[in-house]
Amino acid sequence: MHTDLCERLGIDLPIFAFTHCRDVVVAVSKAGGIGVLGAVGFTPEQLKVECDWIDERIGDKPYGVDIVIPGKYEGMDQVDPEKLEEQLRSMIPDQHRTFAKKVFADHGVPELPAEDKHHELLGWTAVTAAPQVDEALRHPNVKLIANALGTPPEDVIEQCQNAGRLVAALCGSPRQALKHKEAGIDIIIAQGTEGGGHTGEVGSLVLWPQVIDAVAPTPVLAAGGIGTGRQIAAAMALGAAGVWSGSLWLAVEEAEAPPAQKESYFSASSRDTVRSRSFTGKPCRMLKNEWTEAWENPENPDPLGMPLQGMVTMESIRRSHQYAEVAQPVAFNPVGQVVGMINESESVRRVMQRLSEEYLGAVDRLDSLQPK
Amino acid sequence: MHTDLCERLGIDLPIFAFTHCRDVVVAVSKAGGIGVLGAVGFTPEQLKVECDWIDERIGDKPYGVDIVIPGKYEGMDQVDPEKLEEQLRSMIPDQHRTFAKKVFADHGVPELPAEDKHHELLGWTAVTAAPQVDEALRHPNVKLIANALGTPPEDVIEQCQNAGRLVAALCGSPRQALKHKEAGIDIIIAQGTEGGGHTGEVGSLVLWPQVIDAVAPTPVLAAGGIGTGRQIAAAMALGAAGVWSGSLWLAVEEAEAPPAQKESYFSASSRDTVRSRSFTGKPCRMLKNEWTEAWENPENPDPLGMPLQGMVTMESIRRSHQYAEVAQPVAFNPVGQVVGMINESESVRRVMQRLSEEYLGAVDRLDSLQPK
Repeated sequence: MHTDLCERLGIDLPIFAFTHCRDVVVAVSKAGGIGVLGAVGFTPEQLKVECDWIDERIGDKPYGVDIVIPGKYEGMDQVDPEKLEEQLRSMIPDQHRTFAKKVFADHGVPELPAEDKHHELLGWTAVTAAPQVDEALRHPNVKLIANALGTPPEDVIEQCQNAGRLVAALCGSPRQALKHKEAGIDIIIAQGTEGGGHTGEVGSLVLWPQVIDAVAPTPVLAAGGIGTGRQIAAAMALGAAGVWSGSLWLAVEEAEAPPAQKESYFSASSRDTVRSRSFTGKPCRMLKNEWTEAWENPENPDPLGMPLQGMVTMESIRRSHQYAEVAQPVAFNPVGQVVGMINESESVRRVMQRLSEEYLGAVDRLDSLQPK
Repeated sequence: MHTDLCERLGIDLPIFAFTHCRDVVVAVSKAGGIGVLGAVGFTPEQLKVECDWIDERIGDKPYGVDIVIPGKYEGMDQVDPEKLEEQLRSMIPDQHRTFAKKVFADHGVPELPAEDKHHELLGWTAVTAAPQVDEALRHPNVKLIANALGTPPEDVIEQCQNAGRLVAALCGSPRQALKHKEAGIDIIIAQGTEGGGHTGEVGSLVLWPQVIDAVAPTPVLAAGGIGTGRQIAAAMALGAAGVWSGSLWLAVEEAEAPPAQKESYFSASSRDTVRSRSFTGKPCRMLKNEWTEAWENPENPDPLGMPLQGMVTMESIRRSHQYAEVAQPVAFNPVGQVVGMINESESVRRVMQRLSEEYLGAVDRLDSLQPK
């Protein structure tokens, strides 16, 4: 599965692993793929700590950083992050905060300790993501900056490319992909509805070839539904330049997710996910549970837009990490439909080895179906 | 793409074409695949006419017939078709009929001529499908009986297999697939959410390998999202024994769909479909339009179950065929997400040739990515 993209990034396998865990980033890059650190949960200071940690361990391997600058969000014209947070906070109806707290209280999830203060608005906007980009670019092994929502602003693309890094962006339709291409994006990630996190409605099998054809020769990573090497072979047969995977890395041995959350993933089938606006304000695939159902109920408040809903639920997400076991029925468990194929914890090394073997098996099968 | 299934059915390519048009059945089987005639819209007498027509033209090629016996439906205990229809009719609230008529009247779709009477309950139940099976088995070139919804009753499976035919059944989850396997089904069709018509929520890329692994060595056809040979290569890489396609044949030159409907398909993108219960009572993928939106609106009646909703809308469907042009904004246009890749009318022969070429191109691409 060696493509031009491997040459450009200095990797052996075009397997891009999106993860919030620095350990996974290092392990994937060392195993021949490329780890991409999701930065949205970090302040710029925290991001520095994470990247320094990675730099010390990754040797000469490359890695990436994933930021979130949605194309459209409340308060887009405000440039001072403190003022933006204040302005946004005033837009949140009390009933939303009350309802979010009530759902957690009803399930017996303890409150966070009083001293555990936090900003509610992390890297979900252009002004809060900009310092993350600045920080990421200070680390020379960061060879890739990815944007998880929409086309990044022109100046961000230029800033990254001038620093010699590649810029990638996710899309869920050929139209969005063309917008990315026109903006000069280097790598387009086409994510089908199967994918975890923010995702559209069109299935990978139908979306990928349309995006690949629309933006050729710009390389396209196939995302949404990658859990085995057979699925990688399917993606490459459709013309992808590589694959982008997230769910696959949520429950590996190196991932520091709470054991209760990993168990939720292992026991879920592919039918147990839902696209819900209940945590972030945009449709995001996650495990169905009593929280997602509560926000679906027409008698309860409708989720706000991005980033307002995320500000409402920031505390809920922190509580579901802190008290993972009791919180599972209402926890934020973002994951794709491929969760139904993830039933045990493996090491990153083992996963990478398995992907290669399964990939070769799939290629061999296709060859065996050719006329002798 | 030659698999064992090709040997068992006497076909060159494991491409199964589901269609309501006898012309397409003949053309696909003659081009090396196998046409499968959807029988649900026909009385047993009409089905005989269609099969006789096919028999005269298909030479020694095989074809299939697709019936619909849902695993669960209203009135399952009634064995007399006339009484069943009467019994079901009494269960339909007036407001549903009134609303269906109103939506069509609001869009200026003319009424059917008074003499155009019809049964409202066609082959949507075990008792109405049974005579269809009897008729199909009278035609020796019918080598395959497929059931589009759920596991067929034990006696139907036995009847077909005793007559030397293969039995196939659709599924949308590994659990349903195992139920099919236990019932002795010969071929399992795994249809991802991308597919047109009755379909589940799990994407093809994630569903197919799970079903393939669950029922091995029973052969699995990949359905949902097949529009090009690249997608066939993806399916075969994942371990499928062949592909099942429907959308691909809706607008071919040989298909007798009204030109206005074909135009609706050509101009639709992959984002223009919706899973809606508004026509048949079960979630069925079709083009979004003012009809599907009207039945989504919480102020309007909720669709009934199967087969009641289909009895309500039988007249609407006939009107949308009869007056296709004016009816498009409210017409029944079942199709999968792959509709976004279908933009012009081709002959069946050309489609089959294209699928083979694209398939080979995809296999070659995979080979080119292997280490030299």
